[in-house]
Amino acid sequence: MAVEKYMNQLEMAVSPMHRLCKKAGADRVSEAAAKELARVLEEIGVRIAREAIDYSIHARRTTIKAKDIEIATIKVVGKL
Amino acid sequence: MAVEKYMNQLEMAVSPMHRLCKKAGADRVSEAAAKELARVLEEIGVRIAREAIDYSIHARRTTIKAKDIEIATIKVVGKL
Repeated sequence: MAVEKYMNQLEMAVSPMHRLCKKAGADRVSEAAAKELARVLEEIGVRIAREAIDYSIHARRTTIKAKDIEIATIKVVGKL
Repeated sequence: MAVEKYMNQLEMAVSPMHRLCKKAGADRVSEAAAKELARVLEEIGVRIAREAIDYSIHARRTTIKAKDIEIATIKVVGKL
């Protein structure tokens, strides 16, 4: 129940996290690890989105565009 | 067609990205922006997973655990 409530607060699903780990070369991934990855990626995603909103406001737009996400990503996590 | 092919290569869906942007306070988000966010988060996720695999190997485990993800995240993007 507690876990369900915790998961409901996340926008990102757990199954893509398992696939993503396999893509990275993982053999096995615990359920807790997949949930932790969803949690941190969501946190990073929200930070990027917040920066992107700032850039869109600066450009006098009300819609976030791909270029806002690009610049925001560099600001939040550096050059990928 | 080209876009579909591009999207099929991603493990992460686009709709959670829209929700994530709304959560961050966005008014409107272009489809291209949501796709770009999915792309960068997947890239960051794979990097974190790769580091987590290294940590699990170092701990002589074959399963990635939540603590591997925690340490890997700090290494890849710094303290959240």
